[in-house]
Amino acid sequence: MKQGSTDITALLLAYALADPPDDARAVMRLSLLDWAACGIAGHRDGAFDAWAATLDTDGPATRLDGRGGAVAEAALVNGTLSHALDYDDTHFAHIGHPSVAVIPAALAVAQMQGARLKDMVDAALVGAEASVATGLWLGRGHYQVGFHQTATAGAFGAAIAAARLLGLDPTQMRHALGLCSTMASGSKSQFGTMGKPLNAGLAARTGVEAALWAQASMTAAPDGLAGALGFGDTHHGEGAEVPFAWRMGAVSHKFHACCHGLHAALEAVRDVPLRDALRVEVHSHPRWMTVCNQAAPDTGLGAKFSYAHVLAMAAHGLDTGDIDAFTDACARDPRLVAWRHRVTVSPDDDLTEMQARVIVAGVECFHDLDTPLSFETRANRIHAKARALVGARADHIVQAIQMDDLPTFAQLLTS
Amino acid sequence: MKQGSTDITALLLAYALADPPDDARAVMRLSLLDWAACGIAGHRDGAFDAWAATLDTDGPATRLDGRGGAVAEAALVNGTLSHALDYDDTHFAHIGHPSVAVIPAALAVAQMQGARLKDMVDAALVGAEASVATGLWLGRGHYQVGFHQTATAGAFGAAIAAARLLGLDPTQMRHALGLCSTMASGSKSQFGTMGKPLNAGLAARTGVEAALWAQASMTAAPDGLAGALGFGDTHHGEGAEVPFAWRMGAVSHKFHACCHGLHAALEAVRDVPLRDALRVEVHSHPRWMTVCNQAAPDTGLGAKFSYAHVLAMAAHGLDTGDIDAFTDACARDPRLVAWRHRVTVSPDDDLTEMQARVIVAGVECFHDLDTPLSFETRANRIHAKARALVGARADHIVQAIQMDDLPTFAQLLTS
Repeated sequence: MKQGSTDITALLLAYALADPPDDARAVMRLSLLDWAACGIAGHRDGAFDAWAATLDTDGPATRLDGRGGAVAEAALVNGTLSHALDYDDTHFAHIGHPSVAVIPAALAVAQMQGARLKDMVDAALVGAEASVATGLWLGRGHYQVGFHQTATAGAFGAAIAAARLLGLDPTQMRHALGLCSTMASGSKSQFGTMGKPLNAGLAARTGVEAALWAQASMTAAPDGLAGALGFGDTHHGEGAEVPFAWRMGAVSHKFHACCHGLHAALEAVRDVPLRDALRVEVHSHPRWMTVCNQAAPDTGLGAKFSYAHVLAMAAHGLDTGDIDAFTDACARDPRLVAWRHRVTVSPDDDLTEMQARVIVAGVECFHDLDTPLSFETRANRIHAKARALVGARADHIVQAIQMDDLPTFAQLLTS
Repeated sequence: MKQGSTDITALLLAYALADPPDDARAVMRLSLLDWAACGIAGHRDGAFDAWAATLDTDGPATRLDGRGGAVAEAALVNGTLSHALDYDDTHFAHIGHPSVAVIPAALAVAQMQGARLKDMVDAALVGAEASVATGLWLGRGHYQVGFHQTATAGAFGAAIAAARLLGLDPTQMRHALGLCSTMASGSKSQFGTMGKPLNAGLAARTGVEAALWAQASMTAAPDGLAGALGFGDTHHGEGAEVPFAWRMGAVSHKFHACCHGLHAALEAVRDVPLRDALRVEVHSHPRWMTVCNQAAPDTGLGAKFSYAHVLAMAAHGLDTGDIDAFTDACARDPRLVAWRHRVTVSPDDDLTEMQARVIVAGVECFHDLDTPLSFETRANRIHAKARALVGARADHIVQAIQMDDLPTFAQLLTS
């Protein structure tokens, strides 16, 4: 790891205590709506019911599965369920899903503390910023070797969110980050299995536990991130320079119910007839080749990580924005399985992670997810997505957020 | 990571289903007594009381702090408390503390299942073997970069112990190991803080949760250890060749209440007058230099990781076998602080990790911890150590183990 770069622990403490700007807050409120809709729909999916039933239900926190919960376990359940559909927000600066780690941590601790919703939003926001900063400090090498930034960087963000709501002093916050350094985990080998959503839940729980345990006088390495034998050294951290900045304004929301690495390609061909094309060449950033380039998925979950399959769906008029479209039957549909052989995927160093170039029967289509949406457009698309996922409940959630009403917001997650 | 070496997942499954030899069982029963005594004394120390009080107490498992507990949380508490004094057993093949990760996992699941004590011993034994095998497969590079084998390799051992007691089928066991691959963590940056004992507890909990969650139909990477982007790749694993063998017969028990890296040096000078020596030169394996060579510790915990300080204690007639000797006051005692400047510590590649050479005023003293103890000598020294730690309760624990009486054994941990 490079030495002499950003003091990452000091930077994370600065986020914990910062006063966020209003435009970042406004985006975080949109992410809160988006997160709630993804979480409610993620529970309805049912895949994690048997697992969630094994966890302790005694405590003050609300769980998306309708059970009560101990604070740390509610963070675990809610982080997992809200990432179950892989439909939550993504930050491409470090490539991670910030909301599914920090919001469950902030929500559970806020409920325990009887905090106001706007204080929960601020905690989630500074936590999200802390996770992106940690991810940037760890760098691409960390992600590329196999760590899941949602889980690893996310745990530090969740710890900052929880620590802020608990009002930890700077020494306790350092211990919380030290504990986080010895607990944070999460591997990309899990992609395409239930272990991927679980990684988000583990990050949320780790952050909550690290903060609660530091409050309960547990000590840990005072610089567990950058210190000797610490997280940076062990986890292929690059120790990059990371200035203090507000980056959540650039968070990306999903409008297709699959891995974010596939979205630019899907947007590129949105208005293009694909069905009869004999050859579809996808060019995408090399990083995605190990993330979402499954050539022959045979489960609905696997299909969410496959250029060939989502393009086959689009070619056959299946809505990739519909969470119910990604079934095992869809992954095994002979028409789609036959068609997906037409797709070739190539890495292209000239593209960013947000861009894709798709050549359909010789015609080139291009899309860049980084093309900014206006705040109004973004708000409208997220509201529409939330209504599609949870119906009229979406409007009640918007209202609870506007009214700064945490109990009602929490109740709407389960009713 | 090397390719084409041992199929580590298949090897761990083989341990899970193996019928252990009687001599290995006999050593594991000694480790169970040693573990129980260290755990009871570790709770008496009190350092973790405030932390343990934050954890859920509702469940069938016994906790060393006298509270009941949910199965996973009991494993967490018992793993942490039994490593609190750093007085538990060590395996030098991979350099890890096997019992503190696997016994708490086996105990909690055995209580939940109503299993017999001897089945718990067998589960703990195959779990310990699995952890040593995982540690050997990960190799020295994994340890040297900063991972704590007790925690990382230990989690896989705990998972195997729990999976055996739950009777998981091979597919579920693979998922349990896959879950473990995305959850196992633990950093050597925590040495000298409460984070080190916690690492053992986290390993125990991870193993229990991985097994319980696989039983509850959670899926994960089928080869999370050696597969693409898996634990070996991300965690600096070497992928060494590891034949199936029983290695717990070679486990080392501690008779000094400090880091095992210091024991060979202490044994080497046991009968040597040190007090008036103006110069004491310790030669030890290079690996220990980052583990237990704190030059100027100022806490009792730090003193347990310091050649200079433990030799200063020995020089002044303080018993390094007495857990109550390692206080903050001892670490700051001006006589000892002044004396420890006489000690120099040098790495020596010609020594194994079990050996030390200490030159006292020009006279060379040598000890090798690998010099085998007879089973009777080992049993006698462990019984004596247990009696010193917990008094007559040690004899009742021996009896409960002999009588295959799990409820009485568990009750003796807290009464």
